[in-house]
Amino acid sequence: EMLRTAVCAVLLLGSLPSPAAASQGHVSVILLGATGDLARKYLWQGLFQLYRDHASGGHSFTFHGAALTAPERGQRLMFDVLKKLSCPPDEPPDRCAVLKDQFLRLSQYHQLNTAENYTALNTEIEMLLRQEGLKEAGRIFYFSVPPFAYTDIARHINSSCRPPPGAWLRVVLEKPFGHDLESARELAAELAGFFREEEMYRVDHYLGKQAVAHILPFRDQNRQFLDPIWNRHHVERVEIVLKETVDAKGRTSFYEQYGVIRDVLQNHLTEALLFLTMELPGNVSSAGEVLQRKLQGFQSLRGLAKGSAVLGQYAAYGGHVREELQQAQGYVSTTPTFAGVLIHSDSLRWEGVPFLLTSGKALDERVGYVRVLFKNRAYCPQSGTLRDAGSSQCKAKQIIFYIGHGALNTPAVLVSRNLFKPVMPASSWKEAAVQPELHVFGQPLSDYYVYSPVRERDAYSVLISNIYHGRKDFFITTENLLASWEFWTPLLDSISHQSPRLYPGGVENQHLLDFEMVGGELAFALAEPIELLQPKAPTPSDYKTIQAKYRQSPLVSAWAEELVSQLASDMERAASSAVARAGHFHLALSGGSSPVVLFQQLARHHYAFPWRYTHIWLVDERCVPLADPESNFFSLHNHLLQSVRVPYFNIHPMPVHLNQRLCVEEDRGTELYAKEIAALVANASFDLVLLGMGADGHTASLFPHSENGLEGAQTVVLTESPVKPHQRMSLSLPLINRARKVFVLVLGKGKHNITSLISRVGHEPRKWPISGVSPSSGRLVWYVDYEALLG
Amino acid sequence: EMLRTAVCAVLLLGSLPSPAAASQGHVSVILLGATGDLARKYLWQGLFQLYRDHASGGHSFTFHGAALTAPERGQRLMFDVLKKLSCPPDEPPDRCAVLKDQFLRLSQYHQLNTAENYTALNTEIEMLLRQEGLKEAGRIFYFSVPPFAYTDIARHINSSCRPPPGAWLRVVLEKPFGHDLESARELAAELAGFFREEEMYRVDHYLGKQAVAHILPFRDQNRQFLDPIWNRHHVERVEIVLKETVDAKGRTSFYEQYGVIRDVLQNHLTEALLFLTMELPGNVSSAGEVLQRKLQGFQSLRGLAKGSAVLGQYAAYGGHVREELQQAQGYVSTTPTFAGVLIHSDSLRWEGVPFLLTSGKALDERVGYVRVLFKNRAYCPQSGTLRDAGSSQCKAKQIIFYIGHGALNTPAVLVSRNLFKPVMPASSWKEAAVQPELHVFGQPLSDYYVYSPVRERDAYSVLISNIYHGRKDFFITTENLLASWEFWTPLLDSISHQSPRLYPGGVENQHLLDFEMVGGELAFALAEPIELLQPKAPTPSDYKTIQAKYRQSPLVSAWAEELVSQLASDMERAASSAVARAGHFHLALSGGSSPVVLFQQLARHHYAFPWRYTHIWLVDERCVPLADPESNFFSLHNHLLQSVRVPYFNIHPMPVHLNQRLCVEEDRGTELYAKEIAALVANASFDLVLLGMGADGHTASLFPHSENGLEGAQTVVLTESPVKPHQRMSLSLPLINRARKVFVLVLGKGKHNITSLISRVGHEPRKWPISGVSPSSGRLVWYVDYEALLG
Repeated sequence: EMLRTAVCAVLLLGSLPSPAAASQGHVSVILLGATGDLARKYLWQGLFQLYRDHASGGHSFTFHGAALTAPERGQRLMFDVLKKLSCPPDEPPDRCAVLKDQFLRLSQYHQLNTAENYTALNTEIEMLLRQEGLKEAGRIFYFSVPPFAYTDIARHINSSCRPPPGAWLRVVLEKPFGHDLESARELAAELAGFFREEEMYRVDHYLGKQAVAHILPFRDQNRQFLDPIWNRHHVERVEIVLKETVDAKGRTSFYEQYGVIRDVLQNHLTEALLFLTMELPGNVSSAGEVLQRKLQGFQSLRGLAKGSAVLGQYAAYGGHVREELQQAQGYVSTTPTFAGVLIHSDSLRWEGVPFLLTSGKALDERVGYVRVLFKNRAYCPQSGTLRDAGSSQCKAKQIIFYIGHGALNTPAVLVSRNLFKPVMPASSWKEAAVQPELHVFGQPLSDYYVYSPVRERDAYSVLISNIYHGRKDFFITTENLLASWEFWTPLLDSISHQSPRLYPGGVENQHLLDFEMVGGELAFALAEPIELLQPKAPTPSDYKTIQAKYRQSPLVSAWAEELVSQLASDMERAASSAVARAGHFHLALSGGSSPVVLFQQLARHHYAFPWRYTHIWLVDERCVPLADPESNFFSLHNHLLQSVRVPYFNIHPMPVHLNQRLCVEEDRGTELYAKEIAALVANASFDLVLLGMGADGHTASLFPHSENGLEGAQTVVLTESPVKPHQRMSLSLPLINRARKVFVLVLGKGKHNITSLISRVGHEPRKWPISGVSPSSGRLVWYVDYEALLG
Repeated sequence: EMLRTAVCAVLLLGSLPSPAAASQGHVSVILLGATGDLARKYLWQGLFQLYRDHASGGHSFTFHGAALTAPERGQRLMFDVLKKLSCPPDEPPDRCAVLKDQFLRLSQYHQLNTAENYTALNTEIEMLLRQEGLKEAGRIFYFSVPPFAYTDIARHINSSCRPPPGAWLRVVLEKPFGHDLESARELAAELAGFFREEEMYRVDHYLGKQAVAHILPFRDQNRQFLDPIWNRHHVERVEIVLKETVDAKGRTSFYEQYGVIRDVLQNHLTEALLFLTMELPGNVSSAGEVLQRKLQGFQSLRGLAKGSAVLGQYAAYGGHVREELQQAQGYVSTTPTFAGVLIHSDSLRWEGVPFLLTSGKALDERVGYVRVLFKNRAYCPQSGTLRDAGSSQCKAKQIIFYIGHGALNTPAVLVSRNLFKPVMPASSWKEAAVQPELHVFGQPLSDYYVYSPVRERDAYSVLISNIYHGRKDFFITTENLLASWEFWTPLLDSISHQSPRLYPGGVENQHLLDFEMVGGELAFALAEPIELLQPKAPTPSDYKTIQAKYRQSPLVSAWAEELVSQLASDMERAASSAVARAGHFHLALSGGSSPVVLFQQLARHHYAFPWRYTHIWLVDERCVPLADPESNFFSLHNHLLQSVRVPYFNIHPMPVHLNQRLCVEEDRGTELYAKEIAALVANASFDLVLLGMGADGHTASLFPHSENGLEGAQTVVLTESPVKPHQRMSLSLPLINRARKVFVLVLGKGKHNITSLISRVGHEPRKWPISGVSPSSGRLVWYVDYEALLG
């Protein structure tokens, strides 16, 4: 009551905006968590900036700090913060003092705890406006509170504090927005119960960093230069980096739950990644178009797996956690404080280009940048000395969005002089003064066009201004947020129990955190120098591939990874010798999950595989359309055929889908396939048939007690599976047994029992179809991993 | 006669090899062109080395120099050369003197001019052997003569100088081996009339360079390290370079006919290229296996075109030519003395990796090297200073086969220390002493493992030794030679009238010869500083795209290149908007030659094309199997589908080949296709149909007066073409006219008449089917190039 009176008094005392401005209506800003860290450091300063920018025009304002603290204490705490507000150096001190005085008088504190508190706040705002005869333009609620408090506050605002019709509501949310896809979905669903999508402004303060915010405009304004080179043919790699020197001390209660990937990569670095990789919309200022392209960009990202990341933890972190969270001496944290992640986009534009996202605490330097390094496309025939002179085409070519700190200590955009002189908006970016002695990214600064902001602005000032102007493109929509979590969650799940590499911190890290791309994955470049926290599981290289016999045929056994690699090599050898002998290689492949790793191995590591002369046949198929995710062919297509160059003519999916129906006998799909085989495969003898073995002893789609396919003259048959989808098409046992080579791949503990059983039984195909595999004149080899063999 | 007596005397005078050695038989070496340049500089020295290496064991030798010069003068000239023979520094001077004396006494001169001369030579050899009681092991005829003399000499040797049965004949041939594919074929055919393939040793002296000869053994011995990285995922680029400081002065009579590509690239650099790119055979010492893999390597090379090369000519060359060849003052030579050529292999291993071959005269430095530069696969989070210390993974990674001269001034193999320590045969390569101050390829020498030969050997010594040992893998077989000419001839033809860029020569060349890869082609990095010798033809950019009307529909016209680029962009726009609207894009494409450039444009420049959501249909098809080169689908497959990622399920070739027969009506292929369209394309209305126009006014495969397809309800029809193959399948006019968009592409002078005619006629589809194209509710756009439009 006292406060309300104070405010009214203030307004009446003449700090009212000019009538012209006031005529556009009044904006109330409510900062929840008004005395917290973020508010103290950035938000009040941002609100003061907003006021300074708009005090003399547009809307009138009041600023309401709120927290759980009782009124008197809260007010004191808040005004302690407000007293420290400052103006930028270019503001005349007199004017600054006047504006600060006005701002303080327009600000008040509220305790917001109970439902009644919210109702009271609303009543106060309404009363004030009525008293002053002001039209309400809108309300901004800024949530600078822990996420567990979101739901309650949101409910109260929705029920008690909505502005009247015609005025807008904007609620500003700070991360974390969940800690994985599921929790983010739940939180999003909850919030959706209180606010409309357009009312929510989720802050990623990186979008307020001037260099990050300029990525899309830069791409747009420099289309003429970038169009030919912004693609996999020209870009060598991209580095998106945020290095910190500070550690997590004092913040472990938050950090221990989140770690560096959730704290920095999932949000800040991912946003920068998307700004780089997304296709440019026609209008880069349209939040809707940007969002649509960004979501397409997410769709193009290749899924992450355990091997996509390297993780580190600074050595003192464990102690910080034990101390701050009062954990026992033996407590071990696996929370990463350093991560390098390799990301690929499968878009045609970016296929094969590595995007390296890196962030960590306790590193040697504080710096943030987005660096696009171009391939050297030039050859300079004259010798070294001359080659390095001037703006030679043989020098490195790069574009860097320098976020801040580091050697430059200012946001900047750098473009190698041998690339192009960029178009930059003169109102916001100026060519920076040359510091010729400075080297950045291996080159003297004079090798670049360097632009810095005309006016350096704090990220929160930028964002608060954008909230005020309703610029939604600077904020994270629900769809965007969920797309990001959808992308990151599988990695987070897969590494949740992985021990990070310990690093000493600071310059002593030396090469310990250097990492490399190896076969599409990341690995630290130096061997682990410190004992692992957990005993290491035996790895493939600890054992040798076993060569033995199984059911009187050769058996190859190893850990799964090495086994698959051996099988892939054996297949390549078989293919090469068939092509050398006959000019082609007829390969029949099974469905199921085991072959997927094999397909990936073949696609990524077997460059000499004679795909051009290989015919691909299916061993079996489910009676679903070919493009159905359940289809064996679909899996083969996605994991192998998309990555290698088998001619279209050599690909032979099973005709399970004819005349718009599935596996209907009178459509004669089996006959059709049998004819195709007879026409192309000499003697209907495949060069290689790859089989699996089911836990029930089935192979191909020949199940125990099958009526078809175990014997007889029919080479391609329809069968019934005990599991869905029931209908199948399959090569018959007699046809399989005509092959020159049959390889059976068996992987995993789940196959141990059947592997043991089948090792003892005789030829009983009706009971166990796999026992009927016995090439009449070909060679049978079993590839069984240790888990299946030894349990 | 005197000479024969002299030789016999020598042999009787006790310089005979030891009886044990002699028992392996006698080898006669006949050097044709014994007093020429090459013989003087290298060959006699190589023969002397051969003698020194084998004087004390194995065979006995005589050396016969031959030329057209009369005996006395020839003998004097030859012995002047022989007197200057020297031993390497490690040979004791006494022994050297004795050996040289023996060598001179085993050497004699013959005039070889007439058939009788050859018969006489043969008689002398036979008589000598008989007199000495020596068994003949073999004869080596070394052709160090101009190519025009080859045939005569070969005929004489074949008819008069073949050794008796049981002894071998080896004829050694020096380049040039023709100057294009045709002449090389002729020469090869002629020689094949006289010698068997295994008798011919074609010299490419680069194969005798120690660093070049070690490429394959290096790859073989270091398989464990190279297997994972010797591919497009790891190799950034490859440079194969031979730079010379000398010019062509004194050699223009040869050089003016050949130029740098024929002189250096077609042979030396190409051999090095193949050693790098070919798949390793199981046994790298097997000449047969190496040859087979090398030929496969040639098959994988992408064809060269005009744009694959940049050409230069040192400024004084023209003067040298005019002077030496007595040409008039106005004579202009277009022979290149400098070339950079960009080569791509389409193998899965190398796809996309640029191989840059460069050679030139009058450059700033004499040096030869093969440099494999690997991608930087590492990220080093610590800042610059530390990053460069030690053998950081962030430093450049390269393998260099250093052929000689330059900064190192010795053959060498260099491997970056952060790659691996190579396996090198200790008998022939030793770790070189460190010269830490020396920088090569941007790094201090201490960053590499450096190996140099235990014993540095001249290329001709190596080759002569290999001839003696019958090591055919060091020589160019006929197949290899023709494969190389087949690869180079199209480029040579296309640039034969192109003016090379003039360069001053030496260090003054500065950046003038720097070149860049731009869209798969090469271009000089700096704009031409000198007036072109010939007036420039108008290029596309000299005109603007014309927008007008043709047959009441929009017409886009430009030079072909720009027109196709415009069409491709318009197609991408249509695709994107269809996918945004409906989730897919149904595109029907025509066959013929015009679309090929369009397909290439789409494949190479349209990364944002939504191929994943595009369905590809055929407008028409020839009744041939799909994999027949005549098939429209085959062309579409090779020029577009292989390069983009259209899902298999979205590709819809016309079913012209059913039940192992072509376009038989009762197989109902047309119905099948019509049903497929009806099932997938809403309203059977394609999003875009691309058509061409024949010189007779046909479009799709709808020919004038066709019985089918011009009207009626049938949507897919069989038609008859006036040209082979006669049978066709085609979409009907009514179906085409249901499309949302129809684009007609017309290119080339050959279409000018019909373009003029069709502009004037009305709707007369029976006479000119193209005139019946008139989408009922869609949009028709004509894309006609200036040549077709204006003639």
